[in-house]
Amino acid sequence: MAKLMKRYHPPGTPPGTLARRERHKLAAPRMALVNYDESHFDEIEDATPAQVAQFRERGGTTWVHVGGHPDVEQLRELGTLLGLHALALEDVLNSGQRPKTERFDGQIFVIASLPAVAGGSIVTEQVSLFLLENAVVSFHEVASDVFEPVRKRVREGVSWLRGRKADALLYALLDLVVDHGFPVLEALGEQIEEVETGILRAADRQSLNTLHRLKRGLLTLRRMLWPQREVLNSLLVEGEGLITDSTKLYLRDCYDHTIQIMDLIEAYRDMTASMLDIYLSSVSNRLNETMRVLTVIATVFIPPTFLASVYGMNFDRGAGPWNMPELGWAQGYLALWAVMLITMIGMLFFFKRKKWF
Amino acid sequence: MAKLMKRYHPPGTPPGTLARRERHKLAAPRMALVNYDESHFDEIEDATPAQVAQFRERGGTTWVHVGGHPDVEQLRELGTLLGLHALALEDVLNSGQRPKTERFDGQIFVIASLPAVAGGSIVTEQVSLFLLENAVVSFHEVASDVFEPVRKRVREGVSWLRGRKADALLYALLDLVVDHGFPVLEALGEQIEEVETGILRAADRQSLNTLHRLKRGLLTLRRMLWPQREVLNSLLVEGEGLITDSTKLYLRDCYDHTIQIMDLIEAYRDMTASMLDIYLSSVSNRLNETMRVLTVIATVFIPPTFLASVYGMNFDRGAGPWNMPELGWAQGYLALWAVMLITMIGMLFFFKRKKWF
Amino acid sequence: MAKLMKRYHPPGTPPGTLARRERHKLAAPRMALVNYDESHFDEIEDATPAQVAQFRERGGTTWVHVGGHPDVEQLRELGTLLGLHALALEDVLNSGQRPKTERFDGQIFVIASLPAVAGGSIVTEQVSLFLLENAVVSFHEVASDVFEPVRKRVREGVSWLRGRKADALLYALLDLVVDHGFPVLEALGEQIEEVETGILRAADRQSLNTLHRLKRGLLTLRRMLWPQREVLNSLLVEGEGLITDSTKLYLRDCYDHTIQIMDLIEAYRDMTASMLDIYLSSVSNRLNETMRVLTVIATVFIPPTFLASVYGMNFDRGAGPWNMPELGWAQGYLALWAVMLITMIGMLFFFKRKKWF
Amino acid sequence: MAKLMKRYHPPGTPPGTLARRERHKLAAPRMALVNYDESHFDEIEDATPAQVAQFRERGGTTWVHVGGHPDVEQLRELGTLLGLHALALEDVLNSGQRPKTERFDGQIFVIASLPAVAGGSIVTEQVSLFLLENAVVSFHEVASDVFEPVRKRVREGVSWLRGRKADALLYALLDLVVDHGFPVLEALGEQIEEVETGILRAADRQSLNTLHRLKRGLLTLRRMLWPQREVLNSLLVEGEGLITDSTKLYLRDCYDHTIQIMDLIEAYRDMTASMLDIYLSSVSNRLNETMRVLTVIATVFIPPTFLASVYGMNFDRGAGPWNMPELGWAQGYLALWAVMLITMIGMLFFFKRKKWF
Amino acid sequence: MAKLMKRYHPPGTPPGTLARRERHKLAAPRMALVNYDESHFDEIEDATPAQVAQFRERGGTTWVHVGGHPDVEQLRELGTLLGLHALALEDVLNSGQRPKTERFDGQIFVIASLPAVAGGSIVTEQVSLFLLENAVVSFHEVASDVFEPVRKRVREGVSWLRGRKADALLYALLDLVVDHGFPVLEALGEQIEEVETGILRAADRQSLNTLHRLKRGLLTLRRMLWPQREVLNSLLVEGEGLITDSTKLYLRDCYDHTIQIMDLIEAYRDMTASMLDIYLSSVSNRLNETMRVLTVIATVFIPPTFLASVYGMNFDRGAGPWNMPELGWAQGYLALWAVMLITMIGMLFFFKRKKWF
Repeated sequence: MAKLMKRYHPPGTPPGTLARRERHKLAAPRMALVNYDESHFDEIEDATPAQVAQFRERGGTTWVHVGGHPDVEQLRELGTLLGLHALALEDVLNSGQRPKTERFDGQIFVIASLPAVAGGSIVTEQVSLFLLENAVVSFHEVASDVFEPVRKRVREGVSWLRGRKADALLYALLDLVVDHGFPVLEALGEQIEEVETGILRAADRQSLNTLHRLKRGLLTLRRMLWPQREVLNSLLVEGEGLITDSTKLYLRDCYDHTIQIMDLIEAYRDMTASMLDIYLSSVSNRLNETMRVLTVIATVFIPPTFLASVYGMNFDRGAGPWNMPELGWAQGYLALWAVMLITMIGMLFFFKRKKWF
Repeated sequence: MAKLMKRYHPPGTPPGTLARRERHKLAAPRMALVNYDESHFDEIEDATPAQVAQFRERGGTTWVHVGGHPDVEQLRELGTLLGLHALALEDVLNSGQRPKTERFDGQIFVIASLPAVAGGSIVTEQVSLFLLENAVVSFHEVASDVFEPVRKRVREGVSWLRGRKADALLYALLDLVVDHGFPVLEALGEQIEEVETGILRAADRQSLNTLHRLKRGLLTLRRMLWPQREVLNSLLVEGEGLITDSTKLYLRDCYDHTIQIMDLIEAYRDMTASMLDIYLSSVSNRLNETMRVLTVIATVFIPPTFLASVYGMNFDRGAGPWNMPELGWAQGYLALWAVMLITMIGMLFFFKRKKWF
Repeated sequence: MAKLMKRYHPPGTPPGTLARRERHKLAAPRMALVNYDESHFDEIEDATPAQVAQFRERGGTTWVHVGGHPDVEQLRELGTLLGLHALALEDVLNSGQRPKTERFDGQIFVIASLPAVAGGSIVTEQVSLFLLENAVVSFHEVASDVFEPVRKRVREGVSWLRGRKADALLYALLDLVVDHGFPVLEALGEQIEEVETGILRAADRQSLNTLHRLKRGLLTLRRMLWPQREVLNSLLVEGEGLITDSTKLYLRDCYDHTIQIMDLIEAYRDMTASMLDIYLSSVSNRLNETMRVLTVIATVFIPPTFLASVYGMNFDRGAGPWNMPELGWAQGYLALWAVMLITMIGMLFFFKRKKWF
Repeated sequence: MAKLMKRYHPPGTPPGTLARRERHKLAAPRMALVNYDESHFDEIEDATPAQVAQFRERGGTTWVHVGGHPDVEQLRELGTLLGLHALALEDVLNSGQRPKTERFDGQIFVIASLPAVAGGSIVTEQVSLFLLENAVVSFHEVASDVFEPVRKRVREGVSWLRGRKADALLYALLDLVVDHGFPVLEALGEQIEEVETGILRAADRQSLNTLHRLKRGLLTLRRMLWPQREVLNSLLVEGEGLITDSTKLYLRDCYDHTIQIMDLIEAYRDMTASMLDIYLSSVSNRLNETMRVLTVIATVFIPPTFLASVYGMNFDRGAGPWNMPELGWAQGYLALWAVMLITMIGMLFFFKRKKWF
Repeated sequence: MAKLMKRYHPPGTPPGTLARRERHKLAAPRMALVNYDESHFDEIEDATPAQVAQFRERGGTTWVHVGGHPDVEQLRELGTLLGLHALALEDVLNSGQRPKTERFDGQIFVIASLPAVAGGSIVTEQVSLFLLENAVVSFHEVASDVFEPVRKRVREGVSWLRGRKADALLYALLDLVVDHGFPVLEALGEQIEEVETGILRAADRQSLNTLHRLKRGLLTLRRMLWPQREVLNSLLVEGEGLITDSTKLYLRDCYDHTIQIMDLIEAYRDMTASMLDIYLSSVSNRLNETMRVLTVIATVFIPPTFLASVYGMNFDRGAGPWNMPELGWAQGYLALWAVMLITMIGMLFFFKRKKWF
């Protein structure tokens, strides 16, 4: 449950306060620094704020990436150095924020949601991005180096980013974050398919629990990815001056991807809802079948049992000729068996024809 | 399940990359080339990119149609030749895209969704269309020549297209794609009607499965055709300079057709939902009827069986005059039968009047 | 089912094609012609296109009404004569269109939906209206002369239309079409009331089927009348130049009626949904009651039957004093009956107090 | 059911026709006339149209209130006298109209909906208001003098209305109509609370019917009060020239009340829906409990009855030593009772521990 | 139920009437007064209206906070002194208002909703705020000093508010009110988690009631907090002249918090809905399991009981060789036991394999 909550300050804390409530053990932060233009590429794997200032003076595009939960002190230093807005830094620190785009004076701040599969269940990790004049600052609350593919292509000089500005780098990072949704959904889709096969074979309790887990995962995804559409839309609208028209074309493509992901999520939700229906209907069908068969068995034995009880009565045959004369017939017992068997078979036949079992 | 996913690059792939992930065996592409104006009509059934350039220089309207999954190399060549945007070409290659209209500089790119029935289930095939200055380029991911009716009419000179520009050709192709929805929905409608008849006659498991299949088909259709409305709307708004006012009137008519198709889909969805209700209520009714009849049979036999058990007791009649004197009565046995029959008939009569069976 | 589909051309048919797919036997068309102004009124009951031209030259307002499915040839002739747009004529021919308003150059084309009760079920008939400079052309796909009340009032000179332009006539016809919804809904309301009474008295299968039929009728009505709001709204917005301000006041009144009709339909839908709930709950209640009573009967007899079985055992009373001494008691039989009756009555009393039957 | 329908003319009736369809016996109308300004107050309890004209000439604010269904002739006379629009008068006569605001030239016409409790069920009564230059005309379809509190305050000179224009009077009347929703909803809330208590105590049929009645009442209220928001909003927008800015502040307050009422209605709807769930779940729970207890009783007696039947068999003990030797044991009968009791108690204990009853 | 209703005047009460309907015993009001700027801080804990006037003359920012239900007389005095609008004061008095922002001439009036947990259930308390030229007036209907954290920081001079205007104080108070939602939702989340654990362990009636209580709490929260978004949005739009741009950035942050709170509420609602499904399905599963096991027990005993009845019949073995010769066999009794045991074990085995119990 706790993961539904964003981290929050106690009500009444002044805005822009950079204090962390240490509820969870956090990964140590690591700052990777890159500076490139068409002709050069420099990189420091574990940089200090001082190095950031040096790199930025060189011209070209500077990219600062902080992986893991940033240190409050370091964050404040970085904020002062690059002029990052205090409210934005507060959101970087208190992860679990809803995706949003904010335009401060001379900078764009983007919070995006990176879907991932951790320990069998779906989680979303916060990625925070600042677009400055000629720099991008990115934060990822998890230490894993999710942006390495981009850095590698830039390092090897094969990337189209080398010839472009910082806004193209922002796009490249956002695109990577958004596209992470596809493999996560593919994995989810395979699990849904498995559960479906399971339910059609045998509607057991296990499948129901898996189904509920998948539904909750889809809900989480939808809640965190839905505002991502708005993030990209806002970038297109509010990017004036920081985002070039050619980059906007690419962002529009990225926007289409967010819509496709929402479409997929909706389709999966429809499918899980429909599977729940199938599950419930087959559970109820199975019960009905069982009860019907059992009741038919019971019912078939009732009239013969009645007859047997009748001929177990002790009426005094000597008291008169009408007192149970059947008991004295030579073929009485056989005749009774015949009657009983015919009754039972007749009932079975009748019930079968009525499709009662 | 897999068909829900659009094909996607691994996250982090640079935008506009033309690389195909070969998961499915694809149909070999075939490029048909047409050039016409009011006075002439030229056609090459299996053209090369070089011929495209030649045709285009002749003036008139040039129409390039690629059926089947296009070859990456061929696509790149065609893109360079005609100035098609790289992001658009990427969408052509990665089929399963959501319908959309995009305006690039001097060209309009449209993705539409062609509904079809393949192997008993409903699929949608991607059709990609480029409207250039005096040319239309169309891609259909399946090799079947869906646009032949248009080409035939142009070839025979009976089409009103002969006297018009490329924008009218774009309309003609889009109209054909949209109108393909009608026969598909008609087929679906007939299946729904069949299932309905089946359910009213006998609510069996088979009907339920067909119903679920139809519901899923409708969901797929809705998901793929819903954005088609927006496609046509965007064309009307963003077509400035490439689409003439008289063609816009026709596109508005085509827009009305997309709305009619969505209306039909909604109506069918309401009907399948209502049929599911009928199914569940008649399954439950049938069970109830069965259980009630069986329980009535059982209940009717219970009091006589009790009486028979009573007169099967072995109380010592010699021990006193009150010990089961009935056993010694001359008509005792007959009287008991009468009591038992009257009880049973009375109960049946009572239950019948209460409409319990 | 088929009536859900609008009639459509095979995909790929050129736009504006006036060809009819003869699936249904259609009523022969009949063209009524009226010309009036404040001072005169002329009328031809079964007119030819030539007469239309004559009438129009006289000045005043000309009203051409075609009842029944129009003849393709006649329609083309009329279209040429009055300058009706080809796309609009196609919609007139292919009935089952969704209501809409379209503005062509110098003319307004309106499709409206006339609700009617035919053979016990609700249908909607297409009415197509053209508003020209000083003429109205109306088409009604059914031969019944639905507009006779308007014509009669104009003929007798008592109508306010006599002193007004063609736009007032358009309003009068639309108002009549819209107001036809009220008696249809009143009839529907009475049927719903009947079914409700039926369901509260006895929740039988028959009521359920009627309920489903009514629900489907309401769905059809809603689907066909919902866009009618938009029709009237568009007329108010796009009528510039053809519709005067004073007529707009009347159209706004007519618009209010479409909203009232939608309100009623929604209210009826809520009521049918609520009645379905009552039906299901009373069916399930009735079953529960039955099963409970039967089970109580069965349960009440079980302990006495057990006791009777016990005293039917054959333990050898001579083998010892503890072997069924009750059988030898003088009052044993009576005592047992007492025990059995007390048990049964006690159980009935207990179950009654627990409200189990 | 009939009360869902507004009164309507037969389709084809010309607009603005003042004819009443006499379906219901109507209350005789009574016209109250008031004229006031800061310094004087005149009043006629049962006025004639001629007196209206006299009063209006005196200056100040004139208020004409017609309680009960107005007489057609009187209405026409009043309409002519005060210049009320014909379409508006038609709506006054055909009560059951949806609330709306209409701006005619120099006058504002408002239909509002007055919720009331009549004979235990919720009804809404139509209140029609005209705001003219220096006069307000109000119609209330019921004869009860709902506006007396306002008149009394004006008469006694304690009202702030004395120093204001007619628009303030319009506000005062509208505010009274809107605020009538609060006591009605309070009464409804108390009924809902009662039903809730009833359902939690014993989920009987009676509660269900009350619940359905309350739900329908809420639906009616919502349908009639929902458009009231729009009424007040339109007044704020379209009041230009007739409504002063200071009155607009008050109307905004009144608008907030309509929203609060809609909020309450939604909250009550949620509560009734939730109570229906509780009802159904407790009915089903009660049935389940009953059936389970009965089935447990039956099941507990089945094995002992079987054993008793076994020892009631007549195998010939003389035929061999293995034929029912138990019958000859001295303690056989007692041992069997012990076995039977242990079985029954064991089963009860087992079922209890499993929480089966 | 009563707490759903806002307090209201009887319909017909003039607007702006400051009269309290004394239905509940109210907390005595207490007025705290603060005046500060960058260099000084003055404070009176229990102030009189006269002191308010004095403080305001000093310049700087004046903050008047009234905790508890204000006295009508005091309120009127305060209103006159500070020029607070009469309609706003009426809303302060009649608590239970829906959150809203209103702009009067030279002042902004905000009603916000403070969520709190009182006696185990969720309540919302009304906070009313006025923003004047250089002053903020706040009302909290409960006596608890909810704004003390803000006052303390200002008093100690550590707050950024010291260097800012009254609009920043308004933000600080609103932010505190909004952020109070987070701990309330956290508490709610923990309760939901508890209930979930409870339901998965044992679906008892208790859990269902808790679930319904939680659902109702969420509904209340949603109803009261939903309009809070609009409050902040309106502040951003209508604050012109009273709210500076830098404060707007902070209000936007606060707006994001209201959205996050709504997101959380929606997520919790989804979770409670899903838990109700699980509850119902596990109740029904448990019943099914019970009934199936009981029915299996009953069914297994039926055929042996029938056989025992058969051999309890009294056919006269002397009447012929076919009359129950089994009774005379030496091993007859043993053989019958064998048959009965085999039947029972066979049935159990069969039912087990069919997974019927």
